[in-house]
Amino acid sequence: MANSQELEKRLLAEIMKIQIVDVHSHVSAREPFARSLRELLGYHYFTELAHSAGMDKELLDPDTPDKVMMPALVEALSTIDNTVQYGWMMELARELFEFPHDRLTLQNWEELADSVRRKAKVRGREREIMRASSIEKVFLTNEFDEDLKDIDREIFVPSLRGDRLVFHLADGKVLKSLQKVTGTDIGKAKNLRAALERLLERFKSNGAASLAMSLPPRFKVFPVVEGDLDNALGKAARGKPLSAAEGQTLRCGALFTLAELCRQFDLPVQMMCGVIRGAYRHGIYQGCDLLQAGDSLRSLMPLLNAFPEVTFCLSVLSESQAQELASYGWLVRNVVVSGHWWYDTMPAYVERDLVARLQSVPKTKLIGYYSDAYKLEFALAKFNIYRRILARVLARDYVRAGRGSEDEAVELARLLLRENPRRIFRV
Amino acid sequence: MANSQELEKRLLAEIMKIQIVDVHSHVSAREPFARSLRELLGYHYFTELAHSAGMDKELLDPDTPDKVMMPALVEALSTIDNTVQYGWMMELARELFEFPHDRLTLQNWEELADSVRRKAKVRGREREIMRASSIEKVFLTNEFDEDLKDIDREIFVPSLRGDRLVFHLADGKVLKSLQKVTGTDIGKAKNLRAALERLLERFKSNGAASLAMSLPPRFKVFPVVEGDLDNALGKAARGKPLSAAEGQTLRCGALFTLAELCRQFDLPVQMMCGVIRGAYRHGIYQGCDLLQAGDSLRSLMPLLNAFPEVTFCLSVLSESQAQELASYGWLVRNVVVSGHWWYDTMPAYVERDLVARLQSVPKTKLIGYYSDAYKLEFALAKFNIYRRILARVLARDYVRAGRGSEDEAVELARLLLRENPRRIFRV
Amino acid sequence: MANSQELEKRLLAEIMKIQIVDVHSHVSAREPFARSLRELLGYHYFTELAHSAGMDKELLDPDTPDKVMMPALVEALSTIDNTVQYGWMMELARELFEFPHDRLTLQNWEELADSVRRKAKVRGREREIMRASSIEKVFLTNEFDEDLKDIDREIFVPSLRGDRLVFHLADGKVLKSLQKVTGTDIGKAKNLRAALERLLERFKSNGAASLAMSLPPRFKVFPVVEGDLDNALGKAARGKPLSAAEGQTLRCGALFTLAELCRQFDLPVQMMCGVIRGAYRHGIYQGCDLLQAGDSLRSLMPLLNAFPEVTFCLSVLSESQAQELASYGWLVRNVVVSGHWWYDTMPAYVERDLVARLQSVPKTKLIGYYSDAYKLEFALAKFNIYRRILARVLARDYVRAGRGSEDEAVELARLLLRENPRRIFRV
Repeated sequence: MANSQELEKRLLAEIMKIQIVDVHSHVSAREPFARSLRELLGYHYFTELAHSAGMDKELLDPDTPDKVMMPALVEALSTIDNTVQYGWMMELARELFEFPHDRLTLQNWEELADSVRRKAKVRGREREIMRASSIEKVFLTNEFDEDLKDIDREIFVPSLRGDRLVFHLADGKVLKSLQKVTGTDIGKAKNLRAALERLLERFKSNGAASLAMSLPPRFKVFPVVEGDLDNALGKAARGKPLSAAEGQTLRCGALFTLAELCRQFDLPVQMMCGVIRGAYRHGIYQGCDLLQAGDSLRSLMPLLNAFPEVTFCLSVLSESQAQELASYGWLVRNVVVSGHWWYDTMPAYVERDLVARLQSVPKTKLIGYYSDAYKLEFALAKFNIYRRILARVLARDYVRAGRGSEDEAVELARLLLRENPRRIFRV
Repeated sequence: MANSQELEKRLLAEIMKIQIVDVHSHVSAREPFARSLRELLGYHYFTELAHSAGMDKELLDPDTPDKVMMPALVEALSTIDNTVQYGWMMELARELFEFPHDRLTLQNWEELADSVRRKAKVRGREREIMRASSIEKVFLTNEFDEDLKDIDREIFVPSLRGDRLVFHLADGKVLKSLQKVTGTDIGKAKNLRAALERLLERFKSNGAASLAMSLPPRFKVFPVVEGDLDNALGKAARGKPLSAAEGQTLRCGALFTLAELCRQFDLPVQMMCGVIRGAYRHGIYQGCDLLQAGDSLRSLMPLLNAFPEVTFCLSVLSESQAQELASYGWLVRNVVVSGHWWYDTMPAYVERDLVARLQSVPKTKLIGYYSDAYKLEFALAKFNIYRRILARVLARDYVRAGRGSEDEAVELARLLLRENPRRIFRV
Repeated sequence: MANSQELEKRLLAEIMKIQIVDVHSHVSAREPFARSLRELLGYHYFTELAHSAGMDKELLDPDTPDKVMMPALVEALSTIDNTVQYGWMMELARELFEFPHDRLTLQNWEELADSVRRKAKVRGREREIMRASSIEKVFLTNEFDEDLKDIDREIFVPSLRGDRLVFHLADGKVLKSLQKVTGTDIGKAKNLRAALERLLERFKSNGAASLAMSLPPRFKVFPVVEGDLDNALGKAARGKPLSAAEGQTLRCGALFTLAELCRQFDLPVQMMCGVIRGAYRHGIYQGCDLLQAGDSLRSLMPLLNAFPEVTFCLSVLSESQAQELASYGWLVRNVVVSGHWWYDTMPAYVERDLVARLQSVPKTKLIGYYSDAYKLEFALAKFNIYRRILARVLARDYVRAGRGSEDEAVELARLLLRENPRRIFRV
């Protein structure tokens, strides 16, 4: 047992040296780190938990001034100090802001706030954080109408976010914006294709490495007849309301067109499956979305089958699909099993999923983890937890289970954290 | 590791001192403990397992005399001595009846039967059992037409059972009984509301602390138009058969009316989700109900959204929903995550669920466990198992994982077992 | 802890002595073991993983000569050396072919190939393998039109495979073959019954011990009206295409008829639930089938209810049903919980499922494991992994958890591996 703990420690030390490629985040290239404590505690993981535990919604309003919101939020956090999310905050406070306390309290939060403000002024702070986190590159999630020019591509990798293009194309503003950025009139399937082609050209030439999108549970995909897509697009372009069937045609038409273009431009797709947007009506900003137990990847199969040349990096939101996802990675050649998303990022689920993935999926088809962070600081905290789990699982279920040597375990970790992302996304 | 076991032991010792509030049981206030061994072994957990393992159904019939049934049942139990349910029996026999054996056999069962009979004559036996169990209060589940007068409210807390009101209102007997106990003629939505209001008034004034009900899998809830409810109620009142849609209208109408009244009377709702009543046709009494994998809480969301002021304490029957339930507790302000129900009460599931809940749900929104017991003796056995799991999880996944101190772990346990139930149900 | 490891070791030593009855395999009575390394590496678990990890499909084609395929396959396996499947190969190579290496490489694979060829010439090699595996009897899976005469029934037990009879009866070739082997013209329900009766008579008289079949997810069963079955059968016999409803009638009619005959012939049914055949379109031979998360046994209940005298040994493909399956074994008298099938055979799932089953299902209603192997060699590797898990679970969750003694743990293992299969299938 003592040996076992020693082994885990040694593995963790080696794992901490691996320079990570973080394939999915919501970090802004312009403001990648926090300038204030509020920008850290404003992360929806904290505000939604505080609200859920009883904090007044208006206190969490963006317009509430710091001096009102911050003490109230800090106080509310005492109801969630059992959670892993709270642990993220304490870990990044300790590791990145020299915060010496175990709990954030009304007595000490201003200490941390000062430190955040001070550190924000350090030149090259983003690189400092990434160095401290052993993270080499971080993927961004860029809207299609976003400017990609000034992105520091030494450390950031753009990714095209597909959600609005697939799920909100019938929205006049989205359509107009797409027309504008691509200089294309969209009223027919072939125009849509041309517009999206231009879009992907621009993204590709700006270093974009993937198309990333989230999907609702049991989203049914099917190939669309061109005439039907013409009809749905035409109605959308004329601002007419679409029937349920036309809406589905539009979504599937856009999705299949994007998939075709991903094949053409050799761009992997990152799909995060299973989120019900807005399920909870009384939640705070970014705190209304839920998973659905019993969800299945089955309905995506027509898409995976239709584009065998496109790599689909799949994540699921619900642990009840953990095995299904692993079995897709096991069997389906163009599927990569990627990370542990959102509700699934709690250590309890990560550990179970990781054990099973390492037992059943080719090691070249696993992306260990991505941060999904809005600020770089959280990538450190989240990856640290993942690295500790990885070390424990490799020690217990791989080395001690006789499936490989200690060196092979470290190489496996390197694949999951660095080499697979680099090979799959060509970064 | 030795330290780890010591820590677990110390935590368990502290946890055993916490005076529990058991928020859900089927204990009868009049006959809260067993007067005979048959009343213990007659618990459906044993009879259904014995029947499932091959015991003849007629031997389990209520009319079968003790001298025929008991030896046969004791013998049948030898096929289930691997189970946790069997372990409950042995634990309560040892702790409450000084039974010295590890197994119940044809040679020793009469010893235990004698002890049960003898102890039943002790004055204040219910308090003795509760003291031995560190349980301070036990919730009852009371039918709407039950008399609440003579309940010993120092140790028992009434709860209104909603199942018949929601799922069997179309049944003439139920409707008549409701009319009778409320003195209200029910033929229209507003009469139903008035009747239920009177009912809740009576329950509230008799100390009732919650509305408790079980639901079938994927039960769809939706708000009902008054005219539709009038129509369905009218038909039911006239004894006419209802269409599927009318039946659903009646159920949802009754449920929403009850929820409105819970808001008015400030009464939390306990919802046990996911049981298919009567799924198995050849089962014995109380042994015909099953869970359904792949069930989801999604269909309940309209109710949770419609009554943000009402606290819903949710339990699920299926482990495949464990994460979904935790995520509701995490995000949805009026949801409390409660206990480990029925098929989900096996330690394998309890431990997994507990780890994840403690990682992701505000500590103030967790009710650790409830006994669901028919006799007080089983509350001891079931809570003992829960307390051991809780000590293990807190030691390993909380204290040793660096998420809190030993003292904080004990306070966390106190919230789950006592303080959260007291605050949420105001007892 | 040291004690714990000692206990586990002692239990494993005892478990290794138990002579196993393996209730489900696809071993051929004529060619039960491998004559070449290709026959081992050709197992779909390896070829599908190699293909999934990037190996060219044509290299895996049956027509590709050894000298082209083998080095390519061996090389591809280096991408899956993390998996348990790879571990099977290494375990059987070590235990049955004195292969001294930890990894199969381009440098050493021919060594193993030589050893396989050499051992294949040993007289009584099948008995040698079974002795080395502590396996006494292995069930076969026999097509209805297969000759059962020359089967060595000292070590093999025939089983009738029901898949084609239920799911492909509308296929002209199947119908004709059934007519031919039973000498019955099939155009009406009563002819089908007569033909199947003859079939089961023949199987029974040749020592068949079960009907075995796999089912798609959420397969809905319902009793069929004779006239409807006549109609569907008539159309099928005349080669006419069936409507969806007629197809379902035919499948349910065949299934219920088989169940009736299993009652008549006292034959248990083995049902493997939840496989989507051909879900992945680009897979290699036997590598196109997937599970579906969120599947449920609920839709089978009408069949289980209709034949209380028939024993149904159920397996599921999806871990999200693990608890559902255990609860069926717990409650439903004619259900036996059997093994860990296919995608569910990864140790991560086996261990979780086993813990819960041992906690909640009568010990007489559990079949621990079956190999599902195509060659006897894999039964050794798969059962070895199962036996190690069983020893660990019994040590930790049974003996050390205080639920039984060390001797009782060994007896429990004996039930799961030998005595329950013998009693249930009467072998």
